[in-house]
Amino acid sequence: MEPGIIRVGLLGCGNVGAALAQLLLRDGDDIESRTGIRLVLAAVAVHSLARERPVDLPPGVLTTDAQAVVNDPDIDVVVEVIGGIEPARGLILQALKGGKPVVTANKELLANVGAELFEAANAGGVDLLFEAAVAGGIPLIRPLRESLAGERIRRIMGIVNGTTNFVLTKMTEGGASYHDALAEAQRLGYAERDPTADVEGYDAAAKAAILASVAFGVRVVAGDVYREGISAVTVDDIEFAGRLGYVIKLLAVVEKAEGDMVAVRVHPAMVPSTHPLAAVRDSFNAVFVEGDAVGELMLMGRGAGGMPTASAVLGDLLDAAHNLSCGHAGRTITLRPASIFPIDELRSEYYLSIDVADRPGVLHAVAGVLGSHDVSIRLMEQVGLGAEARLVIIVHPALERDVQACLHDLRQLDVVDRTSGLLRVVDSQR
Amino acid sequence: MEPGIIRVGLLGCGNVGAALAQLLLRDGDDIESRTGIRLVLAAVAVHSLARERPVDLPPGVLTTDAQAVVNDPDIDVVVEVIGGIEPARGLILQALKGGKPVVTANKELLANVGAELFEAANAGGVDLLFEAAVAGGIPLIRPLRESLAGERIRRIMGIVNGTTNFVLTKMTEGGASYHDALAEAQRLGYAERDPTADVEGYDAAAKAAILASVAFGVRVVAGDVYREGISAVTVDDIEFAGRLGYVIKLLAVVEKAEGDMVAVRVHPAMVPSTHPLAAVRDSFNAVFVEGDAVGELMLMGRGAGGMPTASAVLGDLLDAAHNLSCGHAGRTITLRPASIFPIDELRSEYYLSIDVADRPGVLHAVAGVLGSHDVSIRLMEQVGLGAEARLVIIVHPALERDVQACLHDLRQLDVVDRTSGLLRVVDSQR
Repeated sequence: MEPGIIRVGLLGCGNVGAALAQLLLRDGDDIESRTGIRLVLAAVAVHSLARERPVDLPPGVLTTDAQAVVNDPDIDVVVEVIGGIEPARGLILQALKGGKPVVTANKELLANVGAELFEAANAGGVDLLFEAAVAGGIPLIRPLRESLAGERIRRIMGIVNGTTNFVLTKMTEGGASYHDALAEAQRLGYAERDPTADVEGYDAAAKAAILASVAFGVRVVAGDVYREGISAVTVDDIEFAGRLGYVIKLLAVVEKAEGDMVAVRVHPAMVPSTHPLAAVRDSFNAVFVEGDAVGELMLMGRGAGGMPTASAVLGDLLDAAHNLSCGHAGRTITLRPASIFPIDELRSEYYLSIDVADRPGVLHAVAGVLGSHDVSIRLMEQVGLGAEARLVIIVHPALERDVQACLHDLRQLDVVDRTSGLLRVVDSQR
Repeated sequence: MEPGIIRVGLLGCGNVGAALAQLLLRDGDDIESRTGIRLVLAAVAVHSLARERPVDLPPGVLTTDAQAVVNDPDIDVVVEVIGGIEPARGLILQALKGGKPVVTANKELLANVGAELFEAANAGGVDLLFEAAVAGGIPLIRPLRESLAGERIRRIMGIVNGTTNFVLTKMTEGGASYHDALAEAQRLGYAERDPTADVEGYDAAAKAAILASVAFGVRVVAGDVYREGISAVTVDDIEFAGRLGYVIKLLAVVEKAEGDMVAVRVHPAMVPSTHPLAAVRDSFNAVFVEGDAVGELMLMGRGAGGMPTASAVLGDLLDAAHNLSCGHAGRTITLRPASIFPIDELRSEYYLSIDVADRPGVLHAVAGVLGSHDVSIRLMEQVGLGAEARLVIIVHPALERDVQACLHDLRQLDVVDRTSGLLRVVDSQR
């Protein structure tokens, strides 16, 4: 390694990779004059040389041999923006074992085999940095690992999926149906043709697993995360929430629970409209952190997109470069086994929406079921729907298990046609 | 230095110092188990031993000899929370020259002699960390220095003074007068008995100077910052702004201007109510960053208070401890001379409030003055005030120099009693 010169091997040249290449090529002089570090784009490994790229790469850097890039002794740092588990996992492990720091934006990988990667980084004494993997351009992982290293974090609630926030914003502000809002998101390129990973909360769940691991130092994988998406949220739910002073957001929640347990879940939730998260609109992401000493923090910004994500990768690259020049890695991550708090034990206010026959005695029957499970009604509204009616109910804090038992019993009642909605209400702890 | 054990010398034990001592004493085990670093509160230098403290310090740590703490070879890191220029400056320079990293929360010092301190830190090869100096507990300085090290920052707008944000929030939401809102802030401990430093924008100006230095790598001192406070803002201004979709906030603005110039100013401004800064209420702080690649970011949290500020100091302490254990300092700050963009050259929309006699021809005269300076009216409203009237005007983007010339000429008109308000309107660049 020449002093001050860092040769970057880029694995993958899609949206983020191309944006990073563009930044390195366009701003290289500027970055060097500010940081004293010259980042040289030395190799770019891609699947096919034939494909057109949105960036003019210097001659000779393109290759299809990612393995060779990782093993090249002239490459100082590897950036992985391929995504998915393999071959990314194998290439990163190889790089780390070879003593090369790695910067990755790969949430799926970290949320599934993060512990293995962190161990390899620790064993090799090299950096594994991943600011871009959660909430794109928002500085979040570094603040959690460094600025808040001494903080007792109680809870993190994040809007970490821009697609679903866009869809919910359109439903809230324009009264669009879920399907119309999703179609608009697809037209604008905010949602994939197959939107499952976003709308069913899988993307957010992966990010929640990473957040829990970083915030609490425990090994949480995507499969540990309780997960519900937004496809069952209706405009009626949103309107009712609005009348009561709430906004519906898809939240990733990680929090300390009893004992050494960690609760990790993704679901649509009713957020008080005075809460800072309620004002996070369109495709913006935001993460709200509650700590013992620091109080409440919110970090907001662009959670996706080539340039914002590349900006986070660039910050990590400069960090790795600084550490290389000092001859040692930054702080390590060691994860203890996690004990996951079961969703059944969650205590929260709940919103329920129940379609019932519009005849006398219905409310009595419904109230009876709730009462039999010790679930007490805080607020109830009955809305006519032709021959039917809809009961929307908010209950006082209750156990998830009891609320689910209510829903089960309600479905057995003759007068109940459908128990369509269940939403958890965010208590603001403020 | 014993491996893993860092002996902390604390200079000052006021609000922040006592909170930090409490965190170190209460959470020491917890911090060690998470980070591998044992932070030992080895010495606390105070002005008088007699004063009662809100924290039970271990026997023998209190001293009145700050100099001895700084020179003690058993002290590994110095934390300065005395505030003010001297003796803080001398003690910090002494510590840095002696090879000890320093963590400080002292905005006044950094905004006036920061360059001298950074040079001393660079020369000694030790860390000078100051996350707590701007926006208290919000991770801001580290994200700017590290996460955004490669980012071309265009503009930062911050609500960096909690007192004035509290006062403006009370005026906006409760319709309180400036004096009543300030009295409430004083009663709640948010404002000092002499509130000048807060309400006249001196505190925010010091923070703006630090932000400009860190974001753009140039040497900006408090005296370079154009500064106006909030004491001239009226409830009428706020109401009028509200009707037009704006909220009035005291903003610290630092931005890149033509050539290599930097614009740095503090003044009340009209912020569009859809802008994320508009939703930052009460004594919260927030900093909105606009970057070339990252787009828009906002970092929000508690900008003051013992515990949030101590949390930021603790994060810096762990950073310094990590770097000490690696045997080298973190990234350095080198400041180039700054070229300050003159406020006269600012181009902005402006809000003007003018008290005039309520008789025919007044508007014609006022419009004539504006027109003679090429200032064009976007929106005008006339409000009756008994025998008088008030003209409130928003003008299309104009040069500050021309708008000031208008105000000067308006004051010469017989029909104008008073030109009371001038507010700059934030363009959202979105």
